[in-house]
Amino acid sequence: MNFASDNVAPVPQEILEAIAVANQSSAMPYGADDMTALALRRFRELFECDLEMIAVATGTAANALALACICPPWGEIYCHADAHITENECGAPEFFTNGAKLVHIQGEHGKITPEGLSRTLALTAPGNPQKTQPAALSLSQATECGTLYQPDEIRTLTEIAHAHGLKVHMDGARFANAVATLATAPSEITWEAGVDVLSFGATKNGAMAAEAVLFFDPALASEAAFRRKRGGHLFSKMRFLSAQLAASLADGRWLSWANQANLMAERMVSGLLRVPGTRLLYPREANEVFVTVPEGVADGLEAEGIGFYRWGGAGSSDLRFVTNWGTKPEDVDYLVDRALMHAARGGRG
Amino acid sequence: MNFASDNVAPVPQEILEAIAVANQSSAMPYGADDMTALALRRFRELFECDLEMIAVATGTAANALALACICPPWGEIYCHADAHITENECGAPEFFTNGAKLVHIQGEHGKITPEGLSRTLALTAPGNPQKTQPAALSLSQATECGTLYQPDEIRTLTEIAHAHGLKVHMDGARFANAVATLATAPSEITWEAGVDVLSFGATKNGAMAAEAVLFFDPALASEAAFRRKRGGHLFSKMRFLSAQLAASLADGRWLSWANQANLMAERMVSGLLRVPGTRLLYPREANEVFVTVPEGVADGLEAEGIGFYRWGGAGSSDLRFVTNWGTKPEDVDYLVDRALMHAARGGRG
Amino acid sequence: MNFASDNVAPVPQEILEAIAVANQSSAMPYGADDMTALALRRFRELFECDLEMIAVATGTAANALALACICPPWGEIYCHADAHITENECGAPEFFTNGAKLVHIQGEHGKITPEGLSRTLALTAPGNPQKTQPAALSLSQATECGTLYQPDEIRTLTEIAHAHGLKVHMDGARFANAVATLATAPSEITWEAGVDVLSFGATKNGAMAAEAVLFFDPALASEAAFRRKRGGHLFSKMRFLSAQLAASLADGRWLSWANQANLMAERMVSGLLRVPGTRLLYPREANEVFVTVPEGVADGLEAEGIGFYRWGGAGSSDLRFVTNWGTKPEDVDYLVDRALMHAARGGRG
Amino acid sequence: MNFASDNVAPVPQEILEAIAVANQSSAMPYGADDMTALALRRFRELFECDLEMIAVATGTAANALALACICPPWGEIYCHADAHITENECGAPEFFTNGAKLVHIQGEHGKITPEGLSRTLALTAPGNPQKTQPAALSLSQATECGTLYQPDEIRTLTEIAHAHGLKVHMDGARFANAVATLATAPSEITWEAGVDVLSFGATKNGAMAAEAVLFFDPALASEAAFRRKRGGHLFSKMRFLSAQLAASLADGRWLSWANQANLMAERMVSGLLRVPGTRLLYPREANEVFVTVPEGVADGLEAEGIGFYRWGGAGSSDLRFVTNWGTKPEDVDYLVDRALMHAARGGRG
Repeated sequence: MNFASDNVAPVPQEILEAIAVANQSSAMPYGADDMTALALRRFRELFECDLEMIAVATGTAANALALACICPPWGEIYCHADAHITENECGAPEFFTNGAKLVHIQGEHGKITPEGLSRTLALTAPGNPQKTQPAALSLSQATECGTLYQPDEIRTLTEIAHAHGLKVHMDGARFANAVATLATAPSEITWEAGVDVLSFGATKNGAMAAEAVLFFDPALASEAAFRRKRGGHLFSKMRFLSAQLAASLADGRWLSWANQANLMAERMVSGLLRVPGTRLLYPREANEVFVTVPEGVADGLEAEGIGFYRWGGAGSSDLRFVTNWGTKPEDVDYLVDRALMHAARGGRG
Repeated sequence: MNFASDNVAPVPQEILEAIAVANQSSAMPYGADDMTALALRRFRELFECDLEMIAVATGTAANALALACICPPWGEIYCHADAHITENECGAPEFFTNGAKLVHIQGEHGKITPEGLSRTLALTAPGNPQKTQPAALSLSQATECGTLYQPDEIRTLTEIAHAHGLKVHMDGARFANAVATLATAPSEITWEAGVDVLSFGATKNGAMAAEAVLFFDPALASEAAFRRKRGGHLFSKMRFLSAQLAASLADGRWLSWANQANLMAERMVSGLLRVPGTRLLYPREANEVFVTVPEGVADGLEAEGIGFYRWGGAGSSDLRFVTNWGTKPEDVDYLVDRALMHAARGGRG
Repeated sequence: MNFASDNVAPVPQEILEAIAVANQSSAMPYGADDMTALALRRFRELFECDLEMIAVATGTAANALALACICPPWGEIYCHADAHITENECGAPEFFTNGAKLVHIQGEHGKITPEGLSRTLALTAPGNPQKTQPAALSLSQATECGTLYQPDEIRTLTEIAHAHGLKVHMDGARFANAVATLATAPSEITWEAGVDVLSFGATKNGAMAAEAVLFFDPALASEAAFRRKRGGHLFSKMRFLSAQLAASLADGRWLSWANQANLMAERMVSGLLRVPGTRLLYPREANEVFVTVPEGVADGLEAEGIGFYRWGGAGSSDLRFVTNWGTKPEDVDYLVDRALMHAARGGRG
Repeated sequence: MNFASDNVAPVPQEILEAIAVANQSSAMPYGADDMTALALRRFRELFECDLEMIAVATGTAANALALACICPPWGEIYCHADAHITENECGAPEFFTNGAKLVHIQGEHGKITPEGLSRTLALTAPGNPQKTQPAALSLSQATECGTLYQPDEIRTLTEIAHAHGLKVHMDGARFANAVATLATAPSEITWEAGVDVLSFGATKNGAMAAEAVLFFDPALASEAAFRRKRGGHLFSKMRFLSAQLAASLADGRWLSWANQANLMAERMVSGLLRVPGTRLLYPREANEVFVTVPEGVADGLEAEGIGFYRWGGAGSSDLRFVTNWGTKPEDVDYLVDRALMHAARGGRG
């Protein structure tokens, strides 16, 4: 049983089948194939606009490419201090932008506040060549703490950003989980709310390796094809990548999968809160559960081979559990049972 | 019928099955999984040495990462003027090395000669800070012209290279086809012949999207993991990438597939040479056939929807046909029949 | 009268004379000249060790080159949140390192504390390819707040740094002012205290445009010549750059000039503290005076054309005054008089 | 006596005096000073247009910055195979552009021909993301062979370039020598002939260290200030750099100096051609003389300590002599006398 991350999960049968379908004949390489056209069409339908798409295989590639398209080498990218782009990508955004600066904004529960953004922007010096220049805002939806921005929160932030000439990127590695919870149209928390480019994640939501950079302003995509190829991210057999995206979007599967993950996370919260001494570190809003557990619980679960992540570092009792499209109620219930048991033992085990 | 490239081909069933097997359970991400360990083990067995492996999804990523590990930003990389790294990767090697210079060496049939390499090296100025510095030799095996370096040719070139302090990279996008023709042990045309790092291609030889950078000197790999992640090429669900590599290597499949492609190319040569006025542009040594065809043939084939590549540019009668693991004798025979027919019409069609 | 920065000052006659001397004959370019050899010799004498030197014309170039020699693209450079390298160089360190991350450490009075450094290092994950890697510590001596690290403070910080495998850079744009105050041997606050590479500033201390990157571990300099040329910083008529450095070091001039600047700063402190309502923002330890002045004073001084810097931003009464080698007691006294006068008017003027 | 390069020469008294004048008072840093305004004004007058100027200290910096402003990372820069930007700058253009490709065009006497340019452009694939993209043409005036483009030759080349969407850069390290020979208005061989940005060299023509990047289309300069600072090329005491430029332009000095160098080169040609067995390698059109001398001459001159450059490599009798603003007839005559003497000895010395 593995709640270490959503990327430990297997791939839904529908995606493997779509790959098999794409494999029934030969196809032109590098995206000049039907599957890629289909994926693009489905994204346009889903987001109800004439977006441009660049498909890649990893979230890091998606984020770094997206940011390089909206930020010059001397630009500043504003992000939460815990953002994946600054904490977990080994400097990919700096590499793809040729040295932009990621400027950290603190904020509760992984979220940037309008005040935090404004305060940071007030310190900038547009036009002063001694200073890196305001260029982009990057929001994570869901955040690294598994929390969500409400539509109006996004709008408020993007309005500040645009007023300062910034472009707005959204890291949507868990975008599906956010949409599932918020029950909004995807457009409502992206381009209608002022987001210029979205990293739409499919991998954490079932796909083998597939992400899409969606440019709501097609003009921003003008360099994207060159940056993708130059970054080594243009797949020759693109159809297999696109098939994953197209299959995810078909029949609302992406939302169903995300919904299942979210439901299981909520079930886990209910369960774990019955463990005495357990409390949530952040509100549960997507498919991640952050809890502090009593002594002994983490060690006990670990010893049984149950996968999770020590959020507070080695030895910490601040834990992260991530559910996924394939998580089943009995998995969650088993986890809760074991946690109850280890708590009862009181760390004596 | 599509001979435009080997990347138009579908994927062998064995690879899809390996992916399905990898999908039977959850697995730790980022390469800490059994499939990745298996792929590494198989590469070590195949090459009979303690190599290090970095798996990525595209040949461009493999080449650019490999080169960045052996060439500083101020380095010179010597390659054939037609090499894929300089002609078809939109500057990926320059991007990953942070600006190294690709120095072109001319040579018949896509091959660098010892004289050409020595002449180029004689113009360098090691230690002179005004000059970019000799750093790496990159050989393509098979070459862009579908030709091969013999083991002793490789050894001669790498000896010159090493004597000048260069590291040697081999772009093996079609390495399998080369091994199939040369009937050597893989080690004999790589590390035993002085190659330091190999881009081992699986995608053109059946895989969906899988390549391996193989470091025969493990010390050269010390930066590779950081460069891979920073380039956005570390897959979270690595097992599906590794499964493709492991499945390709199992039971000598990679060689069987390459062999089939090579056989079909030879059959095509025999057939096309029966078309009056047709001649080979380069010797056929792997799975690519380069021919000049009489007027009307190219247009005729194109009009029927048969895929190939105009090697000499739009409108040219210098054509490239590429066979693949799945090419069947009847495909080749059909192509030859149509070519004969169009040639007979003499361009009047 | 201009206290806006030390770079508003004219150049001492001795430097112009050294340039005139260097101009008496022709000389080989790119550093193969006597002046450059002389400058190197003097630096080795001054620092009592076999250092390597790379002369450049700007502090930004010196810092960025130095950092690029000790930090890989995926490295983290720890610096104070106010450091010049992160606040005032438009991303030059990021550019020269190809995208390293400058990690900010807070600390009173512009100084990094051992606790701050340790706490930051505790969050790193050496060897984890998802994370940028600990690489370098950069200390500013004097700091951006005009304060100084004592020799033992430096040693404590470099010991922590070295224990974590970091290299240590010192931004010595005002190194002379620090040495003048601390009355130590230059070696005592550099290589003897664990500093690996120093940006030795001459420009703020009189020179026209001359800085030296000093590598106390010559091995670290192996790439420096290539990085300098590639950065466009190798002067053809190097002798004029080197002449400035050699002339600064001759007869202890650099220390006399720094001493004069420091004395004038102390005189200014004494004077300004007589202005009611004035207080120091940071202890005065070098040639910079940071004060909060009562309302009306800043506007009054500004209206008279007296140069200074609004440290707290436009309209702020937190001011920075910088003295230089050529500041005279009467300049300082005049400033103090005017400040007293404007304070007396109470912002009514 | 040193004809190794024009950068071995001392600096004219007028430039040292201008520096002394700039030193008479304090001035605002980073270009907000009168000298910089004066230099800009003089450039605008000289070129009769509203150009933008970025002053730097080296030719390599000027070229690399100029190219970075007109070429994206995935761009191709077309230049002569012998161009300084590709042969003598250790990859600075690649560094500043973040990896653009310098594509070599062959051509007699260091000059690109319209045919050569057209042939190269015919091989490009605009819009194809697999390929680096046509971006810039860089012409050297004077060339590395000391030859010149006539105004109509420039126009022909820039028309081809512009028709393909390229921007045109001119490396004018020896622009003054070109203007002196051609006796044209500077505008006639720059913006009126289709040049978009010029590296205007002053260092080889007398200055200590001063070059100006001149943007004839001010829009192209929008990023230049950030690129300059980020490259470490923004001088704090800019007035001393600008003073050199302003002094060079005053009273037509730059032309007088270049004229003197050119005259001395012509005198040298006349003299050396009297040495039996001597012949010109390229026509003498600026201040460089390329000759093949009979055996023994080069060794003989070298043994006497006369400076020159072995153009054909160590031991070669293909030599380059460069005159400068300060070369005197007696210097040239002495050289010729010694060459005659060594030739007479017939290599027996």
